[in-house]
Amino acid sequence: MPKIKFETDYQEGAHPRILERLIQTNNEQTSGYGDDIHTKRAQELIKNAIHKPDSEVFFMTGGTQTNTTVIKFLLSPVEGVICASSGHINVHESGAIESTGHKVLSIEGRNGLLDPEDLKHYLEAFYADPTYAHMVQPGMVYVSYSSELGTLYTKDSLERIKSICEKYNMKLFIDGARLGAGLVSEASDMTIEDIANVCDVFYIGGTKNGALFGEAVVFPDANRFNLRNFRTLIKQQGGLLAKGRMLGIQFEVLFEDGLYFENARHSNVQAMKIKSAFTEADIPMLIDSYTNQQFPILTHEQNEALSEKFSYELWQPLNDERAAYRFCTSWLTTDEAVEELTRAVKIL
Amino acid sequence: MPKIKFETDYQEGAHPRILERLIQTNNEQTSGYGDDIHTKRAQELIKNAIHKPDSEVFFMTGGTQTNTTVIKFLLSPVEGVICASSGHINVHESGAIESTGHKVLSIEGRNGLLDPEDLKHYLEAFYADPTYAHMVQPGMVYVSYSSELGTLYTKDSLERIKSICEKYNMKLFIDGARLGAGLVSEASDMTIEDIANVCDVFYIGGTKNGALFGEAVVFPDANRFNLRNFRTLIKQQGGLLAKGRMLGIQFEVLFEDGLYFENARHSNVQAMKIKSAFTEADIPMLIDSYTNQQFPILTHEQNEALSEKFSYELWQPLNDERAAYRFCTSWLTTDEAVEELTRAVKIL
Amino acid sequence: MPKIKFETDYQEGAHPRILERLIQTNNEQTSGYGDDIHTKRAQELIKNAIHKPDSEVFFMTGGTQTNTTVIKFLLSPVEGVICASSGHINVHESGAIESTGHKVLSIEGRNGLLDPEDLKHYLEAFYADPTYAHMVQPGMVYVSYSSELGTLYTKDSLERIKSICEKYNMKLFIDGARLGAGLVSEASDMTIEDIANVCDVFYIGGTKNGALFGEAVVFPDANRFNLRNFRTLIKQQGGLLAKGRMLGIQFEVLFEDGLYFENARHSNVQAMKIKSAFTEADIPMLIDSYTNQQFPILTHEQNEALSEKFSYELWQPLNDERAAYRFCTSWLTTDEAVEELTRAVKIL
Amino acid sequence: MPKIKFETDYQEGAHPRILERLIQTNNEQTSGYGDDIHTKRAQELIKNAIHKPDSEVFFMTGGTQTNTTVIKFLLSPVEGVICASSGHINVHESGAIESTGHKVLSIEGRNGLLDPEDLKHYLEAFYADPTYAHMVQPGMVYVSYSSELGTLYTKDSLERIKSICEKYNMKLFIDGARLGAGLVSEASDMTIEDIANVCDVFYIGGTKNGALFGEAVVFPDANRFNLRNFRTLIKQQGGLLAKGRMLGIQFEVLFEDGLYFENARHSNVQAMKIKSAFTEADIPMLIDSYTNQQFPILTHEQNEALSEKFSYELWQPLNDERAAYRFCTSWLTTDEAVEELTRAVKIL
Repeated sequence: MPKIKFETDYQEGAHPRILERLIQTNNEQTSGYGDDIHTKRAQELIKNAIHKPDSEVFFMTGGTQTNTTVIKFLLSPVEGVICASSGHINVHESGAIESTGHKVLSIEGRNGLLDPEDLKHYLEAFYADPTYAHMVQPGMVYVSYSSELGTLYTKDSLERIKSICEKYNMKLFIDGARLGAGLVSEASDMTIEDIANVCDVFYIGGTKNGALFGEAVVFPDANRFNLRNFRTLIKQQGGLLAKGRMLGIQFEVLFEDGLYFENARHSNVQAMKIKSAFTEADIPMLIDSYTNQQFPILTHEQNEALSEKFSYELWQPLNDERAAYRFCTSWLTTDEAVEELTRAVKIL
Repeated sequence: MPKIKFETDYQEGAHPRILERLIQTNNEQTSGYGDDIHTKRAQELIKNAIHKPDSEVFFMTGGTQTNTTVIKFLLSPVEGVICASSGHINVHESGAIESTGHKVLSIEGRNGLLDPEDLKHYLEAFYADPTYAHMVQPGMVYVSYSSELGTLYTKDSLERIKSICEKYNMKLFIDGARLGAGLVSEASDMTIEDIANVCDVFYIGGTKNGALFGEAVVFPDANRFNLRNFRTLIKQQGGLLAKGRMLGIQFEVLFEDGLYFENARHSNVQAMKIKSAFTEADIPMLIDSYTNQQFPILTHEQNEALSEKFSYELWQPLNDERAAYRFCTSWLTTDEAVEELTRAVKIL
Repeated sequence: MPKIKFETDYQEGAHPRILERLIQTNNEQTSGYGDDIHTKRAQELIKNAIHKPDSEVFFMTGGTQTNTTVIKFLLSPVEGVICASSGHINVHESGAIESTGHKVLSIEGRNGLLDPEDLKHYLEAFYADPTYAHMVQPGMVYVSYSSELGTLYTKDSLERIKSICEKYNMKLFIDGARLGAGLVSEASDMTIEDIANVCDVFYIGGTKNGALFGEAVVFPDANRFNLRNFRTLIKQQGGLLAKGRMLGIQFEVLFEDGLYFENARHSNVQAMKIKSAFTEADIPMLIDSYTNQQFPILTHEQNEALSEKFSYELWQPLNDERAAYRFCTSWLTTDEAVEELTRAVKIL
Repeated sequence: MPKIKFETDYQEGAHPRILERLIQTNNEQTSGYGDDIHTKRAQELIKNAIHKPDSEVFFMTGGTQTNTTVIKFLLSPVEGVICASSGHINVHESGAIESTGHKVLSIEGRNGLLDPEDLKHYLEAFYADPTYAHMVQPGMVYVSYSSELGTLYTKDSLERIKSICEKYNMKLFIDGARLGAGLVSEASDMTIEDIANVCDVFYIGGTKNGALFGEAVVFPDANRFNLRNFRTLIKQQGGLLAKGRMLGIQFEVLFEDGLYFENARHSNVQAMKIKSAFTEADIPMLIDSYTNQQFPILTHEQNEALSEKFSYELWQPLNDERAAYRFCTSWLTTDEAVEELTRAVKIL
């Protein structure tokens, strides 16, 4: 009998309402590449959600593709992108950013977050170095909301990062692969409108929040950039879906009556139950996360016991006896699965 | 009332059996990135279809992405890829190949096909040039089956191209975005096994033949290449789908009982009816195509008349009075649509 | 006994005055990377020569490097550069431009020159194509003065090209690898100031006109571009010489009292004698060139006879009996060498 | 009156014997791009110096260019290059490596050196990570001899690094921008033959050791690589000098009777005098260097006093009161300059 999986938030299909809509619309004939009414409607729904009529929205199929395309679009050839050392673009994208010619400039993160003070010191030291013209120029800051470790920036810290960016003439890009889980978290002090206000560009992750796949790139103030060629760049980067409406349809469903946030809420609720299960069993957590990723620290015995019935990811070996593991929930994580895990944790 | 569209072969959704299967499998939990049983089964089905147990199969989401990744994988930095001037990579991929550092070396095509003699002369002239070491080295030949103009290579001409490739130490890559329509054409003298035998790598296009999206890259003789890192390259190119099983599921459905070829057959049958309609009305065709793309040459009056009810693509202005247009059929093109078009053509 | 070489214009060392100056300045201590008084003085001399106090001048070591860096600097990722099919960047730079991600968009040239009408038609057809957003966007026009075939644009044709560039929002870049030979040609109707007035950027070639090596990139109106990072890009492209003053010193010598033009004049004078020798012997020329490259069409017998004593380049096979060859002169081509060649041509 | 400069080892011209030879050979006619007798002779001299008849030698104009070309040549698209965090390619090359699509994977260095144990742990951790296929694959190790901080690997430590490279199927590349100063150092236990034996490729730096410019790339066992296209890649990277013989002539002079090592010896002798001057004045050194770079730690007062007569580089601020500075000597550093500095240090 198969194990119950808490490996990732993309281990199941799509929310049933998305599949239903795909069936309903299946025989419609539309032009390709996003030039269709579903895509246009999805764009309008997102613009309304952030209250930015001057924004522009583009759809792409996955996170690495999205990060790469946005960064390539906004940086000049000698510029690099700053991120926390744990940032997805620095670790888990197989060098996609570098494949477009740009260095990822990593700063040691704090629980997955880039600290504004650390950023400030980095930049001061950079420009104080007499040889800085021989180095990659910092052109952008990349942060994730929520982060790769499930943590969240405060609104204040993002605003401080933004003003540092402005001072040093850098763009701010927010990776929202798990934006939903971040925004609906009890620990969040931000709305999607706040996200749009604080950055130059962000994306709304669908893949990890109930879509078959798909990410929505949002430029909140489209007038600031020459976006005429952005779709051509998406094409160049292999991200322009022929049946582009499939992205539009999915985001229509997600944003027409709040399904996007509903999915995320379900996911977080299940994650918080799992967190409680571990902490009540006196099992320490690597990170105090309030989103859909939880990182208990298990002994080898505990891990062996749990892995009989459940699968999850080894996150980080800590010493000879313990390691941190990642348990991830999704829009589909069932009460039964969580209860079974809770019972198993209790008897560890 | 909306026009009937003959614009492309990706203007509708997916074959209903694909959608059904997505629904059936929706709640299954699988690991991401193609490490799942559906993907494995789809790989086996394709290996069986080509009778190549030593082949390897990878799934990607779109054609430009696939072409770019394969070409980047197989070429060294100073090598370029030869194709007919009308080749998709030379025209309609927004410079995706060049974005990975490789020049597209175009040779004037003949009805969309690269002529083996032209290829031979090109290479002889290249190596006869005393300055050839200062030029981009030809490392690969790229052909499409069927071509961008709906035409087909004979088996003999592909074998001649292959032996030229071997002589000059080049790879042969077949773009199969419309492989189905090619192979089931009455004008084809090849099977999918022949395709696999004649090239180093090819892909089986799903997007234009009834899938929501998806292309299957096939290395018929996997031992000839170090494919260990190919999936990492797919990731770097932004083509590794998180919910990778969606590609697997679609190709399972397409290849488990011949739906792939059935879709293509339907598409070609409808195209041949359209061809007849035009030729019976004494309207000349730009190309004598036996696949799902047809290119009638219309006067401006004829075009105006037809475009009241139908939409299709302007292909090529020919002179002040006439232009060639593209009519494209798909797995879903209905008899009613074809009949309505036939009636309209008759009264032009 | 070695043959007399007419192969290229870079087959000897440097003008003696350059070597003398290198010796005189050898023990001076200067900062590296062009931050020295010789470089500054050379920059001023060039600014004065073009009467553009707002210009900026950078020095690089070779032509391919210069072309690549300038093009990479001025194009966005989806843009390509238009040139005549014979353009150096399209043929003889080993894919350097493509290695930075940009497609070279070639238009069939006329005697090595891009015809303004051809350019206009190309752009009209491009923007009339409904699929143009899926194609590489034309962002720059590249021309050479003098061209790879020794020919020259008229001032009028360059001005027409410039206004087409302005209309379509493209940059105009003039490759001046052989700028000297072009400007002092009896067939030229332009001055170096005219060159500066008509383009966005050009370079003054030193390598082929008496320097050990070195090219001076000139942005005539520096305020139009953000050049703050241009030197960093030169570094990234491997073109920032540690002992940067060597470039400064050479251009000081070339521009402080007209040596640059003197070298070119000598070179052209010798070339015109060679042209006369061939035409007086009724040997046809491939091109009517008035610069330092001459292209006689020789029979195989004539070629065999001449190649006993002289070496020169096979340019282009024409048919089974004849081919065009290139004879190139330099600042050092001696009267004796030319006379010996003249005698040999007479008795062909 | 100008300050005495100890800023770099490339602040003067070339050794007089090089300039003399340039003058002697100036009027010789040779083919371009390194196809000349001087280049061939220089290649033979270097092959003899390392006792490797099967080696191949290429000349390029600068260090960044050389590093970039070698790394691009040897890595596949998903591979990166490991180096110490202070490595030149990681810091001071403006992102040149990344501009070719490859990530620089930095490991915290120890006094500028990559520790073999640190390398081993890095690789063990990398391959133990279950997600390693989504990360940049380590394909090469880059070290400098001598290092950016003037320090030296022992023969034993390089051999250990080499065997780690072999185990993990990585190349070993030694940057020899300051190879001379390294090999003739009293602290070195290696010969140039040892260098050739331990690595896959290295380069012999001319720019920082008495040449006008120039680096010699050496593949000690040319049969292991397909070098047929390496020169084409040099051209693509903008590093193929038209008057290629200039590189050949310089390396002929440097290697025909030991001038290369003589220059380095002079440079080191002067550096050791400077080191003594500081240590006798009880001024601490950041690093115990036995090559031509010395890093005294000065108070602000000491720095102000010294900088009246001398110029040198700020290396690293240490705290509010002190910073490390770099004093660099060259083949031309005079006894007078060193004595004047010694006197000035004494009275600090």
